[in-house]
Formats: sequence, structure tokens, C-alpha cells
Amino acid sequence: MTYLELYNNIMRKKSFLCIGLDSDPAQIPEHLRELEYPLFSFNKAIIDATVSYAVAYKPNLAFYEAEGAKGWKQLEMTVEYIRKKDPSVFIIADAKRGDIGNTAERYAKAFFVNMDFDAVTLSPYMGKDSIAPFLKIQGKWAIVLALTSNISADDFETLPLLGNIQMFDDLSAMYDSEGLYFTPAAPVGAPLFKSVIEKSMRWGNINNIMYVVGATRPQKLAEIRMFCPNNFLLVPGVGAQGGSIAEVARYGMNKSCGLLVNISRSIIYASNGENFAEAAAEKAEEAAKEMALYL
Amino acid sequence: MTYLELYNNIMRKKSFLCIGLDSDPAQIPEHLRELEYPLFSFNKAIIDATVSYAVAYKPNLAFYEAEGAKGWKQLEMTVEYIRKKDPSVFIIADAKRGDIGNTAERYAKAFFVNMDFDAVTLSPYMGKDSIAPFLKIQGKWAIVLALTSNISADDFETLPLLGNIQMFDDLSAMYDSEGLYFTPAAPVGAPLFKSVIEKSMRWGNINNIMYVVGATRPQKLAEIRMFCPNNFLLVPGVGAQGGSIAEVARYGMNKSCGLLVNISRSIIYASNGENFAEAAAEKAEEAAKEMALYL
Repeated sequence: MTYLELYNNIMRKKSFLCIGLDSDPAQIPEHLRELEYPLFSFNKAIIDATVSYAVAYKPNLAFYEAEGAKGWKQLEMTVEYIRKKDPSVFIIADAKRGDIGNTAERYAKAFFVNMDFDAVTLSPYMGKDSIAPFLKIQGKWAIVLALTSNISADDFETLPLLGNIQMFDDLSAMYDSEGLYFTPAAPVGAPLFKSVIEKSMRWGNINNIMYVVGATRPQKLAEIRMFCPNNFLLVPGVGAQGGSIAEVARYGMNKSCGLLVNISRSIIYASNGENFAEAAAEKAEEAAKEMALYL
Repeated sequence: MTYLELYNNIMRKKSFLCIGLDSDPAQIPEHLRELEYPLFSFNKAIIDATVSYAVAYKPNLAFYEAEGAKGWKQLEMTVEYIRKKDPSVFIIADAKRGDIGNTAERYAKAFFVNMDFDAVTLSPYMGKDSIAPFLKIQGKWAIVLALTSNISADDFETLPLLGNIQMFDDLSAMYDSEGLYFTPAAPVGAPLFKSVIEKSMRWGNINNIMYVVGATRPQKLAEIRMFCPNNFLLVPGVGAQGGSIAEVARYGMNKSCGLLVNISRSIIYASNGENFAEAAAEKAEEAAKEMALYL
């Protein structure tokens, strides 16, 4: 899917809602737990009920892996079902993978070839080697972790970098992996996540790279828009984690919307009774209606 | 497994060899490809032939995920087989996961409860939230990426940090996720990977946390031993990537060995004929014999 196609889908559905499928056998309604494919059955009902309000779905891989080979099968079934139900939906593998060369290529095969995901979330720690293989496949996206919504994002993501090359004690650090002289555009003390975004923007383009920026620090969205005006941002942290759609839209939206706001638990677990799908639809509709105000 | 048990296994086998099971349907011998479980059949033969020389095995998750649900099943079969064959072997899920709270707990369930892995490799980007859930399970280990062996490790892992708090422009950055005042022990300009090791050492102990440090920059092992003398290091990059056992032992070994040196392709793909397992055994024996010299 291209940037423009994603934007068009957003304008058509009047929504930039992504629904996180953190589908947990212990939290889905009891009457589904005894079925042969409980996670898929749950997902199918949620998708049927919410697809007119959502432009994207984001299965969280951990929940499927925790069920072993059968969980993986239900993940495959879910992706196939979404694709059939509404081919315009953007499907994100929330996998947070990050490994080098030949290994990254295998992950790309798993998510983009075997399954028809549009995008995969990736950790940038190991650098370009761990992102570039995902950018080679036409129409597919890398979603790079930048500033996440969890408290310990401050352990490393916001650490201030030294931008003053005279102070380097190891000259090799003045060159990046492409052999380019390292002259950070960022001022002295810019946080790591800024360097992640600035460097990785050069590895891809707005049609294949977006960033995870948490809704829990909305004013940071405005800072990021200063140096990253065009890329889409995938924004978790609305709902259970406390962020608000209004603030995300206010600080993070660009001319092409540029936002996918993810909501997981407060939609999919809106009820754990037999009416769970209707309850999810209500919550999704409510979110989409608010989003429409800002589009 | 405890630190001491791992050390005892190393001394008993006179080897600190970890064999990476990067088992790829396109690279295993042709006569195995038509079997029902080609990756498992390959792994089983490799394990049978090499288990007396290896203290650890490290399946690389990407290669199994690339085969879908059936790949995941063969991963489960492989872990079970290793555990049955030699219960003393340390089994590492090379998964490079990294996600928060409830999601990390699901990954821990996948690797430590459903499957009997001893350890999982983790990306530190998202901070303590993404490591701590793995440290809660008695006898299991988190192996945190520090300085990896790939070229683009220099994109972020070696970026120099600003250690001078007067220069912070955002006061919140002076506190880490535990609310502690941030007074880096590292001098101004210390690389990110040093901060990763120094902070995360406090989250666990030598019985449950080790670090990935590539063999391709052996002198960095000596630097790391200055501030991380006791933890085990998992060292990839020997063999196909160019690092040497001698240099890793010289710069990285501590009083309790403190090393697991991983070799993947140059052992498991030593031959692609019918004699592949014997060829792998020869290469593993050669590596172990060299390791014994340094123990």
C-alpha cells in the first residue's frame, strides 16, 4: 500500500483508527474458549463488527506465539480473514523484530510473503542492517520504534546524545555504517529517538517507513513534526494507557493526516459477555466519530 | 540454570561453544528437504553429532517463523529434543524480542513455559519494561543486545552520550524510569551500549542476565570487562563473520569463563552432502579443542 492509498482509505472511512488485536485466551469471552480456534473466532467477530470504523488492524505477535504453533496458525487465519473482508485495510504485525541481514530477510518473508501483512514494527537498536531488508519489498512498510509509550522509554530512548565531535575519544565513532562523516543535525543533547528518526528517514521514504510515537507524551509529537513532517506515525497509548485522540490529533496530524492511532484493550475487551463484538463496535465507532472531527 | 551450573557444564565439556541453529530449508542437504519435518530432521542430526562439543544451542527464530505454523512446530520439537538428549545444555531462543509489560510476559510464556528455553535474546531499546518480565522466572535468563557484530551497530549502539547534566534542555531527562536521579557513571561521550549494560546490570544479576557482544571487535570485550567483569557474554561473529576464538578468549574471558561463543553457518553448513552431520561434528570438535586450550 502506498502513502496516498493509506491517506485515501483514511478519508473514505473518516477514521485513522487502528485496532490492536492483543487477543488473550484468558481475556476473551468464556463461551469462545472451548472452540477449536478461540483467538481466531474472537478476532473474526471483532473484525466483522469494527471493520467499517478501522483503517488498520494490529495483531500483537506475543499473544499468538504464547499459544505455540496453533497460535501462529490463528495469526495466519486472522491476516487472511482481514484481507478477504476488506482488502483496503492496513495490517500491521506488531512484532518489534530487529536482527541483521539474512535473519531480517527471513522475518520479512514470514510477514510479507507467507502472510500478507502490510507492515511490521521493528526495533532500531542494531541499525540499518535490521531495517533495510524490510524496505526492499514493494508496497510493504517498516514501522520503526522511536518514542514508545511505556515509562521505561526514558531508560534509553530519551538519553541525550553528544553532538560535539571534538569530544569523541574514538575516531571511528565519527563515521556511521555507510562511511559517512557523522555530523548530527541535532543540537548537543538531542535524545536518541531523534537520531533514530533522522537517520532512518534516509533509509526509506514516506511510502515505506513510519514511526511508533506514544500518545502518552503528546507534546513530543509536535517536536517530532518539526523534523519529521511527512511520515506517518503509529501512535499507541490511547485508551488503557491514558493518551487522548484530541491531543494526538492536535500535535501529531499533518496535511495527509499522517496518523494511525492504535487502541487495543479498551475496544476489544469492552465487554466479556456474549455481546463483546457489539460492545467493541460501539467503542470503535465512538473513536472513529471523534477522529472524523479532526479530518 | 544458574551461573555456577553453566560454568560447571563448560568445565565438564571443556568447551564454551554455542551452536546457532539458523536452519534454512534452502541450505540444508537436499535429501532432507522432502521429509515431513526437514528443519527438525536437520537439527536432530546436527545435535546428535555435536552435543558432546557444545554447551549451548541457539535456534534463530526467524528461520522457523519463515516456515509458518509448521516452522514453529519444528522449533518446539527441536527444543524438546535437545532437552531430552542432554538436559545440561543451555538453550537460547535467538528472538531479539523487545516489548512492554503484558506483551513481554506473553513472550516469556512462549519461550520459558510452553517451550523449555533457558534464555531469550532481547533488544533493550524500550528499557526496563521490556527486560524485567523475563527476569521474574526462576532459572531463566535474559540475554540483552549490547554491542552487536554487524556493521550498522555504529548507527546507534556506539553513539556517544552526553554525560553532562547541566546541558540537558529537558529536566525530566534527569530522571530514569525508577525516578532515580540520572548520574551516569560513564564519562562524557560514553557509547550507548555502555549505558545499556550499566543500567540493565542493576535489573538482574549474574544468574539471570548476560549480554550480546560481537566477536568482530574483540578489543571492545576488554573495555566491557572493565565495567562488567562477571556477567556471561554471548559472543556471535566467529566463523563466517570473521571473529576469532583466540581473540574473544583473550579479551573477554573472566574467572568463570564468562563466555558463550556462538558459531552457526561454518558448523551447520560445513557440508551439504549426506555427510553433513559428520562434517559439522568435525568443525564443532575443532572449535571445542581450541576453546579447551583457554580454559
